Amino acid sequence: MHDTHKPHSHNSHNEEHFQQSTLVRDIVIGMADGLTVPFALAAGLSGAVDTNAIIITAGLAEICAGSIAMGLGGYLAGQTEVEHYNSELRREYYEVKHFYEKEKEEVREVFAEYGLSKDSQNRIADEMAKDEDKWVDFMMKYELGLDKPDEKRAGKSAMNIGVAYIVGGIVPLSAYFFTTHPNDGLLYSSIITVGCLFIFGYFKSKFTGQPPVKGAFRTMLIGIIAAGAAFGIAKLVG
Amino acid sequence: MHDTHKPHSHNSHNEEHFQQSTLVRDIVIGMADGLTVPFALAAGLSGAVDTNAIIITAGLAEICAGSIAMGLGGYLAGQTEVEHYNSELRREYYEVKHFYEKEKEEVREVFAEYGLSKDSQNRIADEMAKDEDKWVDFMMKYELGLDKPDEKRAGKSAMNIGVAYIVGGIVPLSAYFFTTHPNDGLLYSSIITVGCLFIFGYFKSKFTGQPPVKGAFRTMLIGIIAAGAAFGIAKLVG
Repeated sequence: MHDTHKPHSHNSHNEEHFQQSTLVRDIVIGMADGLTVPFALAAGLSGAVDTNAIIITAGLAEICAGSIAMGLGGYLAGQTEVEHYNSELRREYYEVKHFYEKEKEEVREVFAEYGLSKDSQNRIADEMAKDEDKWVDFMMKYELGLDKPDEKRAGKSAMNIGVAYIVGGIVPLSAYFFTTHPNDGLLYSSIITVGCLFIFGYFKSKFTGQPPVKGAFRTMLIGIIAAGAAFGIAKLVG
Repeated sequence: MHDTHKPHSHNSHNEEHFQQSTLVRDIVIGMADGLTVPFALAAGLSGAVDTNAIIITAGLAEICAGSIAMGLGGYLAGQTEVEHYNSELRREYYEVKHFYEKEKEEVREVFAEYGLSKDSQNRIADEMAKDEDKWVDFMMKYELGLDKPDEKRAGKSAMNIGVAYIVGGIVPLSAYFFTTHPNDGLLYSSIITVGCLFIFGYFKSKFTGQPPVKGAFRTMLIGIIAAGAAFGIAKLVG
């Protein structure tokens, strides 16, 4: 019972919550890395080169590579999920047809785990077996832990993650456009990006129901550690 | 019924399968991006600068930044998952105590969806309510779709992803250590990395039960597209 979360009927609510949370999740995935990695790369190069042009070139190449790797990677991961679900679905239909009794036994096992009586287990299995589609749906969800993935989501998700990465990556890099020396670029980039990481971490945590200030500091810290380490290693090598 | 997958008892098998697949998943996550992004960044810079030193500096800074962002990011995501599970668990215990009838109704709703009779729904809810721990466990899993996360896994997962990213990133960069001009570096880096992406994609797909050759080509293609795009944008800016 989560009354505050149920303005609509159970199903429409779930769907809405799901849609919203997958968009937020995509943006969070893309932007977290987009803000952090190009920021750290630019910071690292700032300690090793003395012109902004190389930092901007490297930064844009990284944003390009990162957004494609994450976006296209996300797209293919989504496609793989759909393929996996469909192949398991075919297998489950095959099994309820050809291993009818064995599959009913598996339904009983699910409820035996929750301490239900033998009699109840039998009744559930008998009733469940009457509707093949619902039975297979039950086995997919409760035996295999698989929810039906949205086929169109893979493409949308790829776009969201890729665009979020680009938006995130432009933030730290922008400082190098408006300054002439890497030292100044690094200074303004750090101020802008650390601020954005804090705000991003705050809202990310708020959306996912976590303590927002703690989340803001955590997100900021990852960026600072990554930038510091990249600066250190580039200084060492350069 | 998945006989070929059940050499042990149901539980020990599941656990083993789970452990193995999370390690493989961590390596896949880290290595996919580790092979792709530093490869594409180095390829991009190869079209814009004429000394390997800058490419190596930028590449190492990127590997450093990327492994921290992914590793630490993975660690905090794991911690957040544990915190989220525990806070929902406390809420569910509170609810079965204070909204006893409403929670029983929610158990009935789960089974109404699968076409079970009113009588069976009532019996299940009554029997389930006898053992509070099992009841809460059921609500966590089937109402909220939450599985108990392994508290120690967050740290291990972070290490795995971070190390896999570093290992993956060293591959494309190594070619620039052994050559003197970016053109040669790019040539050998492309040969080595595209080959590794193919092999990596093959085994990744094999482990996750996907068609391996198709997966090999997909993984290779992401790397080539990312590197091509990064090369193009760096050429344009540089």
